[in-house]
Amino acid sequence: MSIVAVGSLAYDSIKTPFGERDRILGGSLTHFSNAAAFLSKPKLVGVVGEDFGPGEWDFLKRKSSAVDAVKVLNGEKSFFWKGYYTKDFDTAVTEVTELNAFAKFTPAVPDNYRAGDYILFLANIDPSMQLEVAKQCRNSKLIVLDTMNYWIKNTPASLDEAMKHVDGVIINEGEAELLSGGEKNMIRAAEKLFLPNFKILILKKGSHGVMIFGRDFLVTLPAFPVREVVDPTGAGDSFAGAFVSYIDSNGLYDFDRDGIKRAAAYATVVASFSVQGFGVEGIDNISPRDVDQRMKEFQSVASF
Amino acid sequence: MSIVAVGSLAYDSIKTPFGERDRILGGSLTHFSNAAAFLSKPKLVGVVGEDFGPGEWDFLKRKSSAVDAVKVLNGEKSFFWKGYYTKDFDTAVTEVTELNAFAKFTPAVPDNYRAGDYILFLANIDPSMQLEVAKQCRNSKLIVLDTMNYWIKNTPASLDEAMKHVDGVIINEGEAELLSGGEKNMIRAAEKLFLPNFKILILKKGSHGVMIFGRDFLVTLPAFPVREVVDPTGAGDSFAGAFVSYIDSNGLYDFDRDGIKRAAAYATVVASFSVQGFGVEGIDNISPRDVDQRMKEFQSVASF
Repeated sequence: MSIVAVGSLAYDSIKTPFGERDRILGGSLTHFSNAAAFLSKPKLVGVVGEDFGPGEWDFLKRKSSAVDAVKVLNGEKSFFWKGYYTKDFDTAVTEVTELNAFAKFTPAVPDNYRAGDYILFLANIDPSMQLEVAKQCRNSKLIVLDTMNYWIKNTPASLDEAMKHVDGVIINEGEAELLSGGEKNMIRAAEKLFLPNFKILILKKGSHGVMIFGRDFLVTLPAFPVREVVDPTGAGDSFAGAFVSYIDSNGLYDFDRDGIKRAAAYATVVASFSVQGFGVEGIDNISPRDVDQRMKEFQSVASF
Repeated sequence: MSIVAVGSLAYDSIKTPFGERDRILGGSLTHFSNAAAFLSKPKLVGVVGEDFGPGEWDFLKRKSSAVDAVKVLNGEKSFFWKGYYTKDFDTAVTEVTELNAFAKFTPAVPDNYRAGDYILFLANIDPSMQLEVAKQCRNSKLIVLDTMNYWIKNTPASLDEAMKHVDGVIINEGEAELLSGGEKNMIRAAEKLFLPNFKILILKKGSHGVMIFGRDFLVTLPAFPVREVVDPTGAGDSFAGAFVSYIDSNGLYDFDRDGIKRAAAYATVVASFSVQGFGVEGIDNISPRDVDQRMKEFQSVASF
């Protein structure tokens, strides 16, 4: 089995109460792959500029099983984001967004990516692109889509259309509220969001954990408590990467409750490492053994 | 074993997005006893006015094992609170607070309450009164204290003194932040709040669950997801009542992690019923069998 993932590759300049970093590797596809790689290295679809360095390429190659569809656009720079977090890490304030190469992104999934059974992950990009890729991947086993407030507000029709072509959606609480027309109770928000072809809705609640809605079940888990949050950038993408890789490597394509619960616990643990370092460091610096150990710890604090 | 509980008895007029009720039975001691009664009916210490009706007395007698120390003040009315909740239930807005009899409360714990092993629960009242009662109950097995923002802001010295005499404190996230001098990370807030004689700190997070800090362990659980929240009044007191009754009836005076985790799961379930009806109804209308059934459901959605 395998994963095909489409998303952004970027340079991030980040300032948090813990410190700051200039032009470190970021982007939804980067964080997704970083977390997925322990169990299932994805095949990547993305775009970068000529400034994308050898260290960055090395990283992507380590975390993926194919980079054939990561295009370099001549004369362009890579996507750049600059921002900071307030003291409580509740809000990320964007100072600079330069789409650069990403503005000209026309994702194309190569034939060799689409051989055999695979899950398609559509990270947070323009929903019209997500739809385009979903159509290219009609033979995929499952499609999971991530999105954000920007698209919900600005391109609702196109997002709605994309969501009709996927099996699972992963969003956060605020996005669920917005998408459901102001529903603050997550159970009722989920009921409103379920479309006929939907199988699963993953609601990330940041430091408050995650709720997952299946057709006939519900899973709710707290976050793994972290004492020192260094940088929350990419925590949601890391959760998605770990979650999808667990589904893929355990063949949980039917989304049964117990399997989903284990996948959610695993993803909670992996995502908890991501906030403990800047950019990809939190996860890149740990071993599968660290993950196993924290899984046991998570069980002891949260399973009863 | 038994529980001695001190707190407020009140009439509440409550308006929520779901409806409204005028002068229904409320108060921290009421909600605490309502939830504790399934496992361990507490002995009550409180004060009411002459207007306290026969229906209210019947309720207190059903939910307690002694009301000898609930005093009726002649010529006084009972504590009265009027308020409403905004659409998202995030904030309770107080319209009227009439302390009435409660302003003249001088709690006295009778000798017969203090026979044998017992846990003393100090519901949210003036910390100088809590300290006074704690001193009257030096022979108690354990003392657990609840408090709120009002006392943290207005009588910090007296609260600090009261907290030095207790084994456990139960507060919510916002109160922990305030009490720790602005610490938003709950692990660090807990570290700051731990006093030498403290054994346990219970941090309620409302719809986001609960975190419990012991000397050498941590427990974190999500809330039980409720689709129809009718009235959140008393949910925190209900959690406390169910939690303390579980500790008492299972003899968990040593606060071991597994016992605390089970107590927290049990209290989460009982508190989830409390928000499904106005005032005491949510819990008063259910049977131990309903609690057992929801415990199994909670396990299936949140234990992994």
